Formats: sequence, structure tokens, C-alpha cells
Amino acid sequence: MSAVTPLLITTGEPAGIGPELVLMLAAEGRLGADVVAVGDPTMLAERAARLGLEVEIVVAGRGEPAAHGAHLAVMPVVLRAPSTPGVCDPANAAYVIETLALGVRECLAGRAGGIVTAPISKAAIVEGGYPGFTGHTEWLRDACGVDEVVMLLATECALHAQAPDWRASRDLRVALASTHLPLREVADAITFEGLTRVAHILARDLTRQFGIACPRIAVCGLNPHAGEGGHLGREEIDTIIPAIEHLRGEGLDVRGPYPADTLFTPRHLAEVDAVLAMYHDQGLSVLKYAGFGQAANITLGLPLVRTSVDHGTALDLAGKGVASAESLAVAVSLARRLSARAKVPLS
Amino acid sequence: MSAVTPLLITTGEPAGIGPELVLMLAAEGRLGADVVAVGDPTMLAERAARLGLEVEIVVAGRGEPAAHGAHLAVMPVVLRAPSTPGVCDPANAAYVIETLALGVRECLAGRAGGIVTAPISKAAIVEGGYPGFTGHTEWLRDACGVDEVVMLLATECALHAQAPDWRASRDLRVALASTHLPLREVADAITFEGLTRVAHILARDLTRQFGIACPRIAVCGLNPHAGEGGHLGREEIDTIIPAIEHLRGEGLDVRGPYPADTLFTPRHLAEVDAVLAMYHDQGLSVLKYAGFGQAANITLGLPLVRTSVDHGTALDLAGKGVASAESLAVAVSLARRLSARAKVPLS
Repeated sequence: MSAVTPLLITTGEPAGIGPELVLMLAAEGRLGADVVAVGDPTMLAERAARLGLEVEIVVAGRGEPAAHGAHLAVMPVVLRAPSTPGVCDPANAAYVIETLALGVRECLAGRAGGIVTAPISKAAIVEGGYPGFTGHTEWLRDACGVDEVVMLLATECALHAQAPDWRASRDLRVALASTHLPLREVADAITFEGLTRVAHILARDLTRQFGIACPRIAVCGLNPHAGEGGHLGREEIDTIIPAIEHLRGEGLDVRGPYPADTLFTPRHLAEVDAVLAMYHDQGLSVLKYAGFGQAANITLGLPLVRTSVDHGTALDLAGKGVASAESLAVAVSLARRLSARAKVPLS
Repeated sequence: MSAVTPLLITTGEPAGIGPELVLMLAAEGRLGADVVAVGDPTMLAERAARLGLEVEIVVAGRGEPAAHGAHLAVMPVVLRAPSTPGVCDPANAAYVIETLALGVRECLAGRAGGIVTAPISKAAIVEGGYPGFTGHTEWLRDACGVDEVVMLLATECALHAQAPDWRASRDLRVALASTHLPLREVADAITFEGLTRVAHILARDLTRQFGIACPRIAVCGLNPHAGEGGHLGREEIDTIIPAIEHLRGEGLDVRGPYPADTLFTPRHLAEVDAVLAMYHDQGLSVLKYAGFGQAANITLGLPLVRTSVDHGTALDLAGKGVASAESLAVAVSLARRLSARAKVPLS
């Protein structure tokens, strides 16, 4: 791996499905020689044995694998407490955070091309001594010292075996103007300044990471029917429309606001490169439905490439080897592609 | 038509696409002999002429059509002001309301089997003298003198020409715990009493109108990740989970709360008959994406059958003959099916 810039996978919550998804892809030879996992090597070896996966765990940089079979290079971080699949232990919060910190450090030092993150349990991290922790995305923002990042979810049509109808025939990209907030806090979180910052990051990184020269962005309304002329809420009139007009004045191709249930239909989606949804469930329910197992999460605005799976820790499936590794495969593929395009430094 | 109980279509906002969609289906012979439109006969005749549709307008009950070609039976209501496609005139608010009132009256008197409603402009009705008007659904609730109705949207697989992938291979039914509310009012509108009332109506009418003996209902969380154990909002813990436990205690098969972006995936959808979303955009964005042009709106809890198209007035398309009449065809087909099953009085 010395000749190639590695792509790191942080293996996430040790009690979740993250470790086994990485091992499953490694066992199938689907990870690529550039991939290095970040996590506890002993836990990974135990998990492989438990699932009957023949994957040799090799500490990254300490020699080559002994056998000719499947192997997984690991940058080691040591668990704080033994981990049982399906049972989160807040004692391992510091372990999970350390895997992320190591990933960021390697990328910012230019020793890694990007990070792919496996799912974590926000609840376990909060309970384990990080009360302000609200998610990977926000943590990476602070760790990289930037003011604002944007969460984008994207489907990867290139990986679809077939495109049997219009829903599968083109990529869907959905960015969020707010992320992990209780629903009752969303309306107040949508501001003119916030929307313009998010749209700037989205437009810039659609160009820089996705190679879209003049990205076309459709904006959802906050309220049902985009407020219907003020009858179902005034945020469109007071905040969203002024922000769109300001952005258009700057020369960006930003359109809307559209009712969410009108925008996510073929006539509208065909005309834009990304949708900017106002909040989590407005955008992600559609995206998960559209791209289940073929979607990845990308954090825009960071000085590094970061992708993630589109699912959670799935504690009910952990340790059973039955979860699908397709989203992780998509996230790895996408990180490699974005990383190759972003050779110009992102910072 | 005297031998058959008619199915009424209220033609909706006269400046929208409603009138022409009814005429397009009539011209293609797709409405069925039982269908009677409610609206202004002169406006409908003018609209047909404008679009070059050869449809004879016949006032219902006043003789048979003269020609052998396509015709449309109309129960007449007279416009208050001339209507130009694409331009709503609040002066016609009373006209639109009168078409609805006539439809309800005919159903409650047993002279019609159900109502299919074409889209209206809530803004025009509010501006035209009905300040409390928030939508068809709420108006019908009050007109029928019931305390609570439930808005259900459903796709109709039976009408899919093909079912090319899992998304099109089964019906999706989404009911809403709150409907046309500004987003900032949604969290406070979700109450234990409201959820149990909505679930009762949903379960009862899935049996009574859809013929599902023991309906399985999956409930979405209100907050992202269904609140993630209270870290992203407490409504799940304080309100939604107690309501689900209460309903289960009554013997209903109600499950959740699930994160919306987990629930709308194949593993979960395959196990339930309907999804109960907490608010408009959480449920309808997915449903419109899933079933665009093949979905209809059903109002549960009324003493009559009522279905509706899944789209708005589309003023930008009105008068051009280019809008799709598929959702109206679905709504008519569904109303006929529900009406046949609900011969036992619904009240």
C-alpha cells in the first residue's frame, strides 16, 4: 500500500454492523488494495472468526499478509471495553471518536485520500461522555475547523445492474439545509445566512468533487405545498425566496422553492443536478426509498473527502452476517472517485 | 345512468387542470358510464372546444346525448366569474365550494356512490371569502359533521402496466397524522389522543374500504432517526410510543415508531399494509416519488367514499391539454372499487 494513497474506512460502532460489512467486502475481494480499515484488529479478527469469514487482519505498514487469501489492512485503535454485537457500550465512545480523529489526521497530513465512515451510535457516544455530539457530520466539521458543512446523499446509478424505470435511471442527489435537529427546532434553524452558506458549499463542491460545471439546484419549501403563498407558513416568503433571489443574483442556478412532494417527480428531477431539502426526513425518506443499498452520504465543505453509508448501526442485525454491504461498497467507490477528482487540495 | 349509482367528479378550480383532465378521460372513453361531473357546463364545453376535444356536454338527468361520440354527463353549478386557464379568480371560490357541497349532499342522500375531487386552489378559496379553509379534506370533515378524518395516499399497482422493480411491485399506502399545517406547528399537533383517533380510523377503514382483515400499521417517528432515544427530540418517548402501546393493548397491529428514512425501504414496507407518517412532507414526498401518476388521495373516516388526484391545480399547464390524467383515472378507479366494497353504509 505504500505506493498508493490509502482510502480509510473507520469501522464505527463496534457493536453495530460496521465491522462485519468491512470484513464481508474484504472476504469477497471487493475493497480494493488501497483500502485500510481503522479499528481494533483483535475485535475485527474475532468478528471474522464468528462469521466464518476467512480474512487475515494485517496491521497497516507492518509487513505483508502471510497467506494468499483475502486480507484486511488495519490502522489499529484499541477498544476500551469488549464489544458484543448488538449491545452498544458507552465505554467505547472514546474508541469510536479516536478512529475518527485518526482518519482526519491522516487525511489532513496528506497520508490518506479520504475517509469512508461506517455507522456509529450517537446515543452511545453521548452517553459515553460526549454530551454535545450530534453526529459524524458535525463532529468532522469541528475537527477540521470549518464553520459549515453540508450533508449530501447521492445514489450511484453507475452501480445499478439495470435501470428498469425512471426512478433508477438517473442519480438523485439530496443536500440538507439542516441535519440532526428535533423537528420543532427546524423552522427557526432555516435562515437567510444559513441557506446562502449551504448553497455556496453545495454549488462549489458539486463542481469540485462531482465535476458539474454549472450545477442546477432545486430548493424545497419548508412548509407543505411550499407554504402555499403564505397560507401554510411564511418562511418561504420571509427567508427562502429572498435567499434564492440573492443566490441567483450571484449567478448561481438555484430554483424554487418547490413543494417537496412536487419536486420529487420526474418532470422536476430531470431538470436539476441536486435537491436542497430543508430538513432530514423531507429529503432522506425519498432518497433512501429511491436508492436503498445504492446510496452514500457525502460531507461537502470539508478539506477532505468523506463518504459514509446511508444506514445506521442496525444493532438487530449485527453479528449475524446478514446485513447488506452494498451501501458501504457504494461509499468506497464514491470516495475513490471524488478523491481522484479532488487532487487539487480541497482546503 | 338512472339504473347505476353515479360516481361524481367535482371538477375543482376552473382555472386549473381539473376540467380538462375530466374532458380528456371522457374523450378517450375512459370514464365509465357511471361517472357524472359536477361543474359549469358552459365552461366545460368551452374548454373542450379550446382543446379540440370532441366531447358532448349533457346535463345529467335531462335526456340522452344526441350523438354517438364521447359525452360527459354534468350536474350543473354555475361559475361566478368567467375563468381563464392559468389564472385563479377568487370570485369563483363560492363556485368551487358549491360543487363540493352538491357532491356531499348527493352522497349522503344515497344518490351517489362517492366523490372524486379534482384539484382546487386553497389560496383562491381563502382569498375568495373562506378564511378558515385549509383544504378539501378538512372541509369535507366539517361538511359531513365528523370530528376527525384521515388523509391516506395510495398507489395502485393493479393499474401499473408493469412492475419493473420492488418499488413498483406492491401498493404503498401512507396516512398522515397531521395534514396542512405550517411545519413549526407540527410537533405540538401530535398528541396521544390525536394519534389514537387517527390509528382507529385508519385501521377501521383499511378493513371496511380496502378489505384488509387485520391491518398492519407502521408508525414513523416525528424527529430524525425517530428521536434516537431522546437525543433528537422527546415526542417519541412522551407521546408516540405511549400511543402505540395503548393501541397494541387494544389489539391493533401498530408498530414503531420507526425512523422515516428506515421505514421506507423494502424490508420494512414488505411487512405492513400502511404507513402512518407524522406530517405532510415526511410521507407524501416518498409516496409521490413512488407512485407519480399512479397514486390517489383517499379521505378515511367520512360517511362517504372520497378519492382525489395526487397533484395540484398545475396552473402552468392548464388549458394546454398536456397534463397527465393518469392520477384522475386512478382516483376514479379506486373510488369505484371502494364504493363497491362499502355497500354497507359507512356512516
